[in-house]
Parts: sequence; structure tokens; C-alpha cells
Amino acid sequence: MHFISEQRLDDNVLEREFTLGDIPGILWTPGSASASAPVPLILICPPPLGLGRMYPRLAGRARYYAAEYGFASATIELPGSGERPRWEAAEQARAELRRVVEAGEPVTDEIIDALVLPLVERTVPEWQAVMDDLLARPEIDGPVGYEGGIISIGVRLARIDPRIKAAGLFAGSFVPRVMFEEARQVTVPLHVLLQWDDEGNDRQASLDLFDAFGSEEKTLHANMGGHTGVPQFELDPGARFFARHLK
Amino acid sequence: MHFISEQRLDDNVLEREFTLGDIPGILWTPGSASASAPVPLILICPPPLGLGRMYPRLAGRARYYAAEYGFASATIELPGSGERPRWEAAEQARAELRRVVEAGEPVTDEIIDALVLPLVERTVPEWQAVMDDLLARPEIDGPVGYEGGIISIGVRLARIDPRIKAAGLFAGSFVPRVMFEEARQVTVPLHVLLQWDDEGNDRQASLDLFDAFGSEEKTLHANMGGHTGVPQFELDPGARFFARHLK
Repeated sequence: MHFISEQRLDDNVLEREFTLGDIPGILWTPGSASASAPVPLILICPPPLGLGRMYPRLAGRARYYAAEYGFASATIELPGSGERPRWEAAEQARAELRRVVEAGEPVTDEIIDALVLPLVERTVPEWQAVMDDLLARPEIDGPVGYEGGIISIGVRLARIDPRIKAAGLFAGSFVPRVMFEEARQVTVPLHVLLQWDDEGNDRQASLDLFDAFGSEEKTLHANMGGHTGVPQFELDPGARFFARHLK
Repeated sequence: MHFISEQRLDDNVLEREFTLGDIPGILWTPGSASASAPVPLILICPPPLGLGRMYPRLAGRARYYAAEYGFASATIELPGSGERPRWEAAEQARAELRRVVEAGEPVTDEIIDALVLPLVERTVPEWQAVMDDLLARPEIDGPVGYEGGIISIGVRLARIDPRIKAAGLFAGSFVPRVMFEEARQVTVPLHVLLQWDDEGNDRQASLDLFDAFGSEEKTLHANMGGHTGVPQFELDPGARFFARHLK
């Protein structure tokens, strides 16, 4: 991992942009982090809209986690987002989704699979590589929590990587059918946010996915406010969820 | 209102048992409450199991609200519970519910109406009488929050009494059809708890009722743990909900 910028923010949080191979990302560590007192790590997965656009929201969460709870956080630019190269199949899947939505046609399972599964396949190993690197640093020791982004990335990562001890998921994206099966094999504690009046989201699919998770502890927080309107008051319960399971 | 006992608890909360007419109840006020600094009031409605049995849970919530957030809280013995006189129709409705459940027959709308609506009719005016009395005291000035109990009591009270400014509801009881209509007329902020794996509760009816509420701000917190297993970590988000709306 190469750090390409470093700044100490006014809440004493250290923000560093990095690259790991061709993955760009940002690492936030609390002022208290040191080799003698290593801290837990939260992986904050962005939606595929580009880190530049998402920076204020991601940094807001990371700085709150660092300043209030002493967690380190990392985010990455997703494959195909921001300045990262597009790939043909993903562009085609997005174009097909746009076409059916504009034509008022149903969004089929095939379209959802083509849209989501390749992104899951590419992103999960990247998160694992970031974990490999960060957990080898003296100032970060885990355990690791995951949050955000496309819910299927969280489902896959929580299912296959035992380093993930808790996951905060956002039920706001298309869910391939295979993820309902994978969800049954997820057993870590879950904290799921659902925007009840999210026009672009299939609410019943989100409730079915929540029901499918095998986790003994799972919590669903549903709110009003539309897709992007998660209330500010949900920040602290999410942080407390991680504090219960990562300390 | 007559106070029949008074004790100062070790968190400096004052606990007083009272009677108002033939309604027994308990009032908790924070150590800080005085005529010069009046406090908000939470009505904590118990389930119809008797105050004696429910005391530890109710007092735990009330003392947390008082000690951490400076709220007064009151609870009452519901009509037909504890030492209060039973009435024939309610006993018949309960017996009929037991009969169909044991026989594996469906719980019809008629049974639910007979079970719930008379209790709503009797209890709501009692809560209003308690509010009339408590809000006239110098150490309590409102606003008033309502929480708990049978969800239909909360729906009716929030619909008809403008003194209720926020309601915390527990989606764990049978819901008469008419309550879905009444819910559309409820506009105060809501915080709804749902036990996802509550065997005795119709989950879909609870989700439908949540959807029906007319409130612009409504939050659903669903958890595992069965009917009586609301996690301890839900206490503080509920208190913060009231703190946002009653201060």
C-alpha cells in the first residue's frame, strides 16, 4: 500500500489516500491509534458513484467512528467507478437496466445478475487485499466490521471471510436470487438499514433478504426519507452496533 | 390523584404509587424535577399482564428515562388487569381466543375486535385523565410521549389527543382492521419495535400497519429474540427518539 497524501484533520483524525495495486482508497485512523494500542477496522464500501462524489458522506461516517469510538475506517474506489477503467459487460448491463426502466418493463433476474454479480466478483477480493494489508499494520489489529455499499458485496464478504465479525448493510439495491441462498449462510451480527419509501428499491425483496440471513443477531432499522434520506440519527446506533461487536 | 407511597430511589428518581379514581398507577420523576424546571412526560402503557408482574421492566425504562434524559414517566394498571375488576365480555373474548388457538383455527377479525376494541375504548380516556392531572402539576409540563402496551391503544391515543407529540409502539399484538384506517390519520413521529421472530405475532400485519401510518417521520426497529426478547440495546435509541421530539 502506498500513501499518496496525508492530513491531520481538526478532530485529530489522520486521513490518508492510498493505492494498493490499482485500487485507490482512503484510510482514516483515530488520533489515539498507535502500535501500542491498535484499533478495530471498519470497511466502508461506497455505492458505485465515485469516491469524489461520495467523499463527504464517507468521511463524515469515518471521522465519527474514529473520534467517538476509536475505530479505523477504510474505503476504496469500486471497480468501474471514478477514474477506474470501465468494462464492457458492466456498461452493457447498466445500459440494459436504463432501457427497461425507461420502457416501463420489468427488471428481470437476468438483468440484475448481469449488473451485480460481476461487481461482487471483482470487489470482494479487493476488500480482502485491503484487509490483508491493513491488518498487518501495527496500529490496526481488527476485529473487522463491514458496512455500506451494494448489499450483495457485504453478503458475499461476510459469508466467505471469517475476519468480518459484524456487518452494517444498506438495503437499497437490486439483489440477485443467489444472494438469498448466500444470506442463509451468513451468521455474523447484522445491522440493516432500509429506506421504507425508497422508490427505486424493491421493499419486499429487502424484507425477504433480511428474513433469509442466518444470523442469530440481526436488526433492521427502517426509516422514511427516500433512497438517499437515511436520517442523521441512524449514525450513532450503527456505531454502537460496531462497538458492541468489535471491542 | 392520591399518592399512596413515595420513595427516593438510589438514582435520585422519585417513585410514587398513585390512584386516580379507581385507576392505580406509578409516577417516576427525575431528581432534577421542580416547579422551576418542569420536565416532559412519557406515558408507559403496560401489556395487560398486571403491574406487579411488569414492574421490573416498566421501572427499568422509567428510571433510565429519568436518570439519563430527565423525563417523568407514568404507568397505569390497565382495566381488567391486576386487581382491577374483570368484565364479562373481555373474559369471553379471551376464552374464545384461547379456544381457537388451541384448536388450531384461524383468529378471525371478530375475535380480534372483541378482544382489543373494548380495551382501547376503556383505556384511552383513562390515559387522558392521567394526563389532565399530571400536566396540571408544576413539576411536569409536557410535551407528552406515549410508549408501549397494546399497539391499538397507542394508535387511538395518538390519533385523537394532540398532547401526544411522539409515540414509541410495540408491534406485538393483534390489530383490529379499523386500526389500519386510524393509523393513516396518525401524524406524530413514531418509533416502532417489532420482534421479527415473534411466533405469536402476525409479522405481515405489523409491517402493513407501519406502512399505513401517516407520520412523516416513522422508524421501525426489528430484532430477533422472540416476543419478550427486545434487546437491551434498544432502550437508548428509544430514549433518544423521545429526546429529539420532546425537548
